[in-house]
Amino acid sequence: MMPPVFSTVAETRAHLVHLRARGASLAVVPTMGALHAGHQALVRRARDLADEVALTIFVNPTQFGPGEDFDKYPRQLEADLVRAGEAGAAFVFAPGAGEIYPPGEQTRVSVGALAEGLCGASRPGHFVGVATVVTKFFSVFAPATFVFGQKDYQQLKVLERVAQDLLLPVQVVSHPIVRESDGLALSSRNVYLSPAEREAALGLPRALTAATLAYQTGERDPKRLLALASGTLAHYGLDVEYVELRDAETLAPPPDGPLTGTAVLLLAARSGGTRLIDNTRLGQDPAPVRA
Amino acid sequence: MMPPVFSTVAETRAHLVHLRARGASLAVVPTMGALHAGHQALVRRARDLADEVALTIFVNPTQFGPGEDFDKYPRQLEADLVRAGEAGAAFVFAPGAGEIYPPGEQTRVSVGALAEGLCGASRPGHFVGVATVVTKFFSVFAPATFVFGQKDYQQLKVLERVAQDLLLPVQVVSHPIVRESDGLALSSRNVYLSPAEREAALGLPRALTAATLAYQTGERDPKRLLALASGTLAHYGLDVEYVELRDAETLAPPPDGPLTGTAVLLLAARSGGTRLIDNTRLGQDPAPVRA
Repeated sequence: MMPPVFSTVAETRAHLVHLRARGASLAVVPTMGALHAGHQALVRRARDLADEVALTIFVNPTQFGPGEDFDKYPRQLEADLVRAGEAGAAFVFAPGAGEIYPPGEQTRVSVGALAEGLCGASRPGHFVGVATVVTKFFSVFAPATFVFGQKDYQQLKVLERVAQDLLLPVQVVSHPIVRESDGLALSSRNVYLSPAEREAALGLPRALTAATLAYQTGERDPKRLLALASGTLAHYGLDVEYVELRDAETLAPPPDGPLTGTAVLLLAARSGGTRLIDNTRLGQDPAPVRA
Repeated sequence: MMPPVFSTVAETRAHLVHLRARGASLAVVPTMGALHAGHQALVRRARDLADEVALTIFVNPTQFGPGEDFDKYPRQLEADLVRAGEAGAAFVFAPGAGEIYPPGEQTRVSVGALAEGLCGASRPGHFVGVATVVTKFFSVFAPATFVFGQKDYQQLKVLERVAQDLLLPVQVVSHPIVRESDGLALSSRNVYLSPAEREAALGLPRALTAATLAYQTGERDPKRLLALASGTLAHYGLDVEYVELRDAETLAPPPDGPLTGTAVLLLAARSGGTRLIDNTRLGQDPAPVRA
């Protein structure tokens, strides 16, 4: 059954008055739509954490830069509603841009060092857009819980920081990356890939696996781990944007010498024209999740 | 009677649970302490708007620039509690800096054009600090109403914008400037003034009066109104930072030609080393409020 869709803040708040009157808790899964099994896993996780789950569908203009794929980003509300309903979302919030960015708006939420480097380097302003829209979603829902995927790892760390720093009374929960059976991380942008580009895209999970296997057999030299990952990406003919090891919490580059704490290996590369990201934690890696 | 003081977010939220359980509404008056009759007027106004009024006392480090008066800003908690109690505040929130800016914090809230020019020009980062702390106070209290004074007119417009843009479910209410019997706007910084500097400081309200009288007798030429105000400030020997006419809502410079809509005349000047600001609306000016 398709869940109800609200397109305004006022409708949503009116619904939430009833939810709160009966003492029910709310978890929110923010998405840009084009839902896949990864999003559905977030909704199912959210259902374990709250009485009711709302899913937002909003292709947020402020997190796209000039020349990025805002215009062609897949929009498929009907199919999304079916998938949201399958996963158990009680309702969907799918506002127009003017509802979230009212005329004359000029307020932005930004974080510092966490948003620099990695995706922040090639997508200036991206995390300002992300932090701003999620702060607004907090205002709309005041949920007890937000659930985000770990594929956008830097985004997750940025949003954890925003929630903590702005003293938002919300728990930020993350869910492991969901992958196809051959290892490709689910992404709404995978639809852009031709069959050959999709084959090449497997270089990303293969690079993570190569580094993980080396790590598991005792390799702790950051340079050698990065070289393994880079070599794999090159072997698959991908156009590499970054291959980096960072502290899993602060995203700071690890100190010189062998890895000690939990690190995260983060990749961004293009297959054809499509920009893809992937990551894995080294030292505390959860079991892979399959679609 | 002195109201209770909470120094942590947790204590404050615990108190608010009881408030909400009995269906009471809350208004918050954010201050930096050093309370005077202007702050007390804000509390009294807030009492008309909500069942309970909280007053915050927090000398917010992020809204002070290098070389400004953060260190010497007057701090007088005991006297402030007496005044807050007199005016009818139910409780005071007086956190330490670490409670509002947790370790590793790096999130900021900023507005665009509204924060440029006027005080934003000489105090870079000031309105980022103001917008950030008030967004955090919203998270702490989720009040129905914030009450701010009109003396910090640009601040008021910035905070109205932040509330609207971040979709915060709060009403931002303002209260007219409260003045001494001779016209000087009440300010916590007036304590810095020597008797001679205080005499010179009267140039600010006199400049506003000169322009207002001219406006009331039909003067609509921005240049002549500004010249009147500037001349008065010069006559009092003040060190002028800005004298500006702006649209009362957008703070945009008025279009060329005679004034039409509601304008605001804004002044900043130093008397001795003390920076003072004042303003008045032209075209829709409320009666002056005396302490």
